[in-house]
Amino acid sequence: MNGLSAFLLPRGVILTRARRFSSVSTERLEFDKFGIPTEVIQLKREETKFNLKSGEVLVRFLASPVNPADINTIQGTYPIKPTLPGVGGGEGVAEVLETKGSKLEPGDWVLPGLAMSGTWRTHGVYEEGNLIKIRNDISVESAATLMINPATALRMLEDFIPLRAGDWIVQNGANSAVGLAVIEIAKIKNLKTINVVRNRENIDELKAQMKRMGADEVLTEEEARRAWRELPRPRLALNCVGGASGTELCKALGEDGVHVTYGGMSLKPVIAATSHMIFKNISLRGFWLSRWYKEQGMNKTRLKMISQLTDMIAAKDLSPPPLNPIPFNQFKPALETTLKGFKGAKFIFKM
Amino acid sequence: MNGLSAFLLPRGVILTRARRFSSVSTERLEFDKFGIPTEVIQLKREETKFNLKSGEVLVRFLASPVNPADINTIQGTYPIKPTLPGVGGGEGVAEVLETKGSKLEPGDWVLPGLAMSGTWRTHGVYEEGNLIKIRNDISVESAATLMINPATALRMLEDFIPLRAGDWIVQNGANSAVGLAVIEIAKIKNLKTINVVRNRENIDELKAQMKRMGADEVLTEEEARRAWRELPRPRLALNCVGGASGTELCKALGEDGVHVTYGGMSLKPVIAATSHMIFKNISLRGFWLSRWYKEQGMNKTRLKMISQLTDMIAAKDLSPPPLNPIPFNQFKPALETTLKGFKGAKFIFKM
Repeated sequence: MNGLSAFLLPRGVILTRARRFSSVSTERLEFDKFGIPTEVIQLKREETKFNLKSGEVLVRFLASPVNPADINTIQGTYPIKPTLPGVGGGEGVAEVLETKGSKLEPGDWVLPGLAMSGTWRTHGVYEEGNLIKIRNDISVESAATLMINPATALRMLEDFIPLRAGDWIVQNGANSAVGLAVIEIAKIKNLKTINVVRNRENIDELKAQMKRMGADEVLTEEEARRAWRELPRPRLALNCVGGASGTELCKALGEDGVHVTYGGMSLKPVIAATSHMIFKNISLRGFWLSRWYKEQGMNKTRLKMISQLTDMIAAKDLSPPPLNPIPFNQFKPALETTLKGFKGAKFIFKM
Repeated sequence: MNGLSAFLLPRGVILTRARRFSSVSTERLEFDKFGIPTEVIQLKREETKFNLKSGEVLVRFLASPVNPADINTIQGTYPIKPTLPGVGGGEGVAEVLETKGSKLEPGDWVLPGLAMSGTWRTHGVYEEGNLIKIRNDISVESAATLMINPATALRMLEDFIPLRAGDWIVQNGANSAVGLAVIEIAKIKNLKTINVVRNRENIDELKAQMKRMGADEVLTEEEARRAWRELPRPRLALNCVGGASGTELCKALGEDGVHVTYGGMSLKPVIAATSHMIFKNISLRGFWLSRWYKEQGMNKTRLKMISQLTDMIAAKDLSPPPLNPIPFNQFKPALETTLKGFKGAKFIFKM
């Protein structure tokens, strides 16, 4: 029994009517111009009356995280620019409240199908075709955070080079949300991972945690630099750092290796030795999940991937990243901390 | 009538016997250790008696150029290391003098089929399977220089991205031997070329020459930097420079563009903005012709490519690069000048 269907209904009232809401208290984190997120984002509260047209779905969001790309979207520096006024947030999970002429039913869980659709809101009306139904027996936290980071991890492991059980991959920024998903999904696929992280005070604790998740090797940047010769030669490298750290991954790779950049945390470019390109035949590629989603549209490949991920979550093989749940009214410190590049637990709005 | 068959033969002497050489004056540029080419290369002269085994072919070289990779091979810094003592040189054209149990015939022209096989020699004995027969109605200079640079140009235009008539490509180091071949082969394929060269005293003359060869745009590095926005977006970039020059080609490329590195004349690495990799989906690849030849072996693709190139030469659509013919005994200044990275006419030994 999910959400509304658990309400006590007056005898004889038709269920679909009972689920209609004449007026609802809604909240959203809105911006009417691009700029510094803590300055342009405002918490809007209003009583809203929803009149659904055919094919439309009213949902209530359960949780939506704060991702770095959300910050860049509000700054106006991300390649996807929402129409203004916009609502912040690129992913999250919502529960269907009411539908009109849709196969979705109240209580169903859905993810937004469009990129940067504005998920920092309590309520929203969507066309059915822009929602993806997922199983609703997993944790809200996992459901709210699977669409971007675990999806990026899965696509990078599947789309660039055919990998077989026992093959090695290498990644930097390995304790990022994507990095942790890579470790878990690689383990499911029986791939071996070399994980590079920045040195820090609690490095031994971090290494132990990552190994418990399934990491085969965890090395600091300095340790990695000295270790490549003794380590197996990976076929795939995943780079979210750039600069010298990305170059090191080219050294690590074996012949014909593929180096995929999906982030640039160092703010430095991707740099590869000419000899690695020519004589070792390394390819440097880039990955952007928004492009993949756009290319796929709402086709079977996309739906299959989402259900692949939710099944991994249900099987306890894929976990959400460390999260820090907050209500909407604490958005300022959350945005400020994310803006500064804080690398701890990700903030997640719980509605 | 070619080579030996033009000799006057004593009446009644069988032609194949007449072509046998009991003892021949030979010359070769040999090195017995890796090191500075001008120090380790020695001109060896000797009377040699050739006794062919079945399947073997005696050839006389007609011309062999001095390529930068030949220098690196002698230095021992190239990934292909010949057995010592070795003979310098990676390409050249030879005429068949004598054969034993081979389909090749005296007067046939052949190219060596193995990489860095030592072509700076007057005579050599090869297994038939390691020689590629070419048409012998083209210039010795073109024949001697087609196997490396024009082949690199052709493979890069055909193997990385499907190009259609009217598509644009961009290249730096465009007046290199490969660059000039790219211009001519692109013209044959009805592709448009943006050609970037370093600024120099006679820049207008160089631009005019390159345009006469078929270049659509010729720009200095500085001009190119300001021009990308107004130029068509190329689908393929060919980089033999690296560093900032290679990075500029990423700016020039259109979405999904492919950037191929085949040299690093600046001695700087390949550098690409993270945003170009992720949001513009640029791929960075490398090309090494020796790898391609090795992968192909002596199969039809390879033989087809060589005959494609010789046909382009015969049709006057593909010309040799500027060449400076010298005899073997002038090898020292030739090696010294090539070693310094001299970018004028390429030295070619004429035997």
